[in-house]
Amino acid sequence: MTRDLTVSEVRLTPILVADPPLLNTQGVHQPYTPRLIVEVVTADGTSGVGETYGDTKYLELARPLADKLVGRQVSDLNGLFTVAEDVAVDDSRTSDRLDVGGLRGVQTNDKLRLSVLSAFEVACLDALGKALGLPVHALLGGKLRDEVEYSAYLFYKYAAHPEGVAAEQDDWGAALDPAGVVTQARRFKERYGFTSFKLKGGVFPPDEEIAAIRALAEAFPGHPLRLDPNGAWSVETSVKVAEELRDVLEYLEDPALGTSAMAEVAARLKGAARSASDKGGGGRRAGVPLATNMCVTTFDEIKEAFTRGAVQVVLSDHHYWGGLRNTRELAAVCRAFGVGVSMHSNTHLGISLAAMTHVASTVPGLHHACDTHYPWQSEDVITERIAFTGGRVAVPDAPGLGVTLDRDRLAALHERWLADDGGLRERDDAAAMRVADPGWVTPTVPRW
Amino acid sequence: MTRDLTVSEVRLTPILVADPPLLNTQGVHQPYTPRLIVEVVTADGTSGVGETYGDTKYLELARPLADKLVGRQVSDLNGLFTVAEDVAVDDSRTSDRLDVGGLRGVQTNDKLRLSVLSAFEVACLDALGKALGLPVHALLGGKLRDEVEYSAYLFYKYAAHPEGVAAEQDDWGAALDPAGVVTQARRFKERYGFTSFKLKGGVFPPDEEIAAIRALAEAFPGHPLRLDPNGAWSVETSVKVAEELRDVLEYLEDPALGTSAMAEVAARLKGAARSASDKGGGGRRAGVPLATNMCVTTFDEIKEAFTRGAVQVVLSDHHYWGGLRNTRELAAVCRAFGVGVSMHSNTHLGISLAAMTHVASTVPGLHHACDTHYPWQSEDVITERIAFTGGRVAVPDAPGLGVTLDRDRLAALHERWLADDGGLRERDDAAAMRVADPGWVTPTVPRW
Repeated sequence: MTRDLTVSEVRLTPILVADPPLLNTQGVHQPYTPRLIVEVVTADGTSGVGETYGDTKYLELARPLADKLVGRQVSDLNGLFTVAEDVAVDDSRTSDRLDVGGLRGVQTNDKLRLSVLSAFEVACLDALGKALGLPVHALLGGKLRDEVEYSAYLFYKYAAHPEGVAAEQDDWGAALDPAGVVTQARRFKERYGFTSFKLKGGVFPPDEEIAAIRALAEAFPGHPLRLDPNGAWSVETSVKVAEELRDVLEYLEDPALGTSAMAEVAARLKGAARSASDKGGGGRRAGVPLATNMCVTTFDEIKEAFTRGAVQVVLSDHHYWGGLRNTRELAAVCRAFGVGVSMHSNTHLGISLAAMTHVASTVPGLHHACDTHYPWQSEDVITERIAFTGGRVAVPDAPGLGVTLDRDRLAALHERWLADDGGLRERDDAAAMRVADPGWVTPTVPRW
Repeated sequence: MTRDLTVSEVRLTPILVADPPLLNTQGVHQPYTPRLIVEVVTADGTSGVGETYGDTKYLELARPLADKLVGRQVSDLNGLFTVAEDVAVDDSRTSDRLDVGGLRGVQTNDKLRLSVLSAFEVACLDALGKALGLPVHALLGGKLRDEVEYSAYLFYKYAAHPEGVAAEQDDWGAALDPAGVVTQARRFKERYGFTSFKLKGGVFPPDEEIAAIRALAEAFPGHPLRLDPNGAWSVETSVKVAEELRDVLEYLEDPALGTSAMAEVAARLKGAARSASDKGGGGRRAGVPLATNMCVTTFDEIKEAFTRGAVQVVLSDHHYWGGLRNTRELAAVCRAFGVGVSMHSNTHLGISLAAMTHVASTVPGLHHACDTHYPWQSEDVITERIAFTGGRVAVPDAPGLGVTLDRDRLAALHERWLADDGGLRERDDAAAMRVADPGWVTPTVPRW
């Protein structure tokens, strides 16, 4: 067997993909969102793909990292972190502010590096798997399940992007009240078979979002439900909503911003649950678990959050945690501390869905369905869209990730990126909102 | 490429290997110690090797686990844990007692399973690496260093095993006082180039062991020193020894038994360090770090120990932590909590030293030299003994572990195991001690 696993070339292709007008507490998704597609090619001609965020600050890091990758072995995955440490980050890009849209927690140079590195790691794993004839899950120790369950990701949304913006038109219609959310959920269930539902909240006053969750609970009795206001609430509001939805929520995601606030919410919910239990209200009851993809988004944030009992479920995301192998390590840390694991999603395409599916298939004790935006993306860069059956994705056993790049589609979406002069190369949900509402300013938190 | 990674056969070979009369707080090593050699053979004829403890309780588990392995893929490493869970353990073998010799912490059915499973995991990795043409470190994400540093493992020892016992004679001589310990250390340094030293303590009253460490510090100024009494001391004694040796110890290993006692020692050392610092005794000083391979030996024990700050360094051991991949996960948990990692050793042969070297080469931030008993073992089952140069082992880049089984030696040591009728199939340091001292009873702790 002659085989040369040396990286001979790395291709970076920024693209813009259509995105529906989904609402969150910061604003609304723009009509197109940037992603970066990474291709790693080995000396013997094997290639692997990965994808990550495509905003300028990620592209700025990806170029020097790509250059450093050439000449290394695709199997040398631990070394990627050392290589990435040498890539300089422009401090003005991070400065410990919240991340773009404030939706993914703290922003640091290290986290920015990991967010870029992850696409290279996935591409290397894809190439390595193809070279060795093994699926990516086998490179992670082998799948523990044949399919991975995903959750329907419900959004408040407009029927169309605000006037005056060139955009693709989606066929989902509007969802701006409980009835609209339930209609959207029914369609998710019919089309993809999802049986658990997550609503992106923080958009309307809490009572309206409570009503939406109640409507979902009535329409889908017994199905796991989640609500995620992206830290928009005060501790007081968080506790109130959690108590009101206690009987129907699988977990409440980032009701309040930061570890201290989350710890306070958790402590008060625990106290309330104990007190209710002491009064004999029907046996022992636990408070609603708190989940996060905002206060625990780096390994450095784990100790304080776990020690203070601030979160009961961590939503992993291989993009900013630094790849599939780091995702497994995060899961190991969570297991050791009795903290649950689920999976966070930002707008992503099929390459990342395949990567998420591979790693999720190898994580022991994955007791919650994973989040995915994939059904919202009408465009992709792989030849065959990934299918959901019964809300689940089959774990591919083909070598590598099991996806094939569609070079024509990739070229077309790259053309769109090249042609953009409207500022869509940077995701900016507030800017998009200002098209509809010129007076819109990003809300300060707590918003309610 | 035609390649079949299905396990077609698993061979288990219990052996007895010569062991010098090394002393610890429980007694003395017997002249021969049991190990189990595991060979996994794939359908295309590739074979891989692993080794683990060889006492009866491990053999009892290894046989059913070996049977379950046949027909599975050698790459299916995550699934090993699921398979092992199905192997029944005779509760009388564990019952939450301390482990054999009381030297490796709590004993549970799960830990017993992991101690057996690890040999299969290493053998699978060896076979997989050979089949794929990759070294084991590459299967773990690639080495971060080309050599792994080990520490000289100093023991109080008799010149020979007690009279009346058939035994190999070693050429190390006795070491029963500070001068003997220093002589032994010099020889370790001359023969192998070790530059850090660990003394197995808990054998003589603490003042004598303090004197031995002081003698080492004088003979080897500036070299890292460690002392490990295996939990033989009270909190009071532990604090006293730590304070007395504060300026020369790299860390103090398991001075007292259990997380509560260790937490108390750690808190008192921290308090003393703070108080000394407040008094202006020459700037900020930290207490001696506490290391353990007794109170944190399973993932279940981590949360309490880390939350209470009971240990500052965990000594990993792939044998009882469940393999090389679990060792990496343990290191990830430690990193997230700012706890250091080093490596524990029990009597082992070259297969395990190779495995330890591969995994250690992939662990980020391995700031302490690893322990190894290897220099004490005059016998081995591989064709070429592993060499130490400058106290370091070169990380093999050959496919798999990079060792070759010596079938003649294996057969000879197995013959010795078959012929044994003197109870050497079970490690029992107290029994060996009673040959020298018929009145010997295993000391209760704290011994001092």
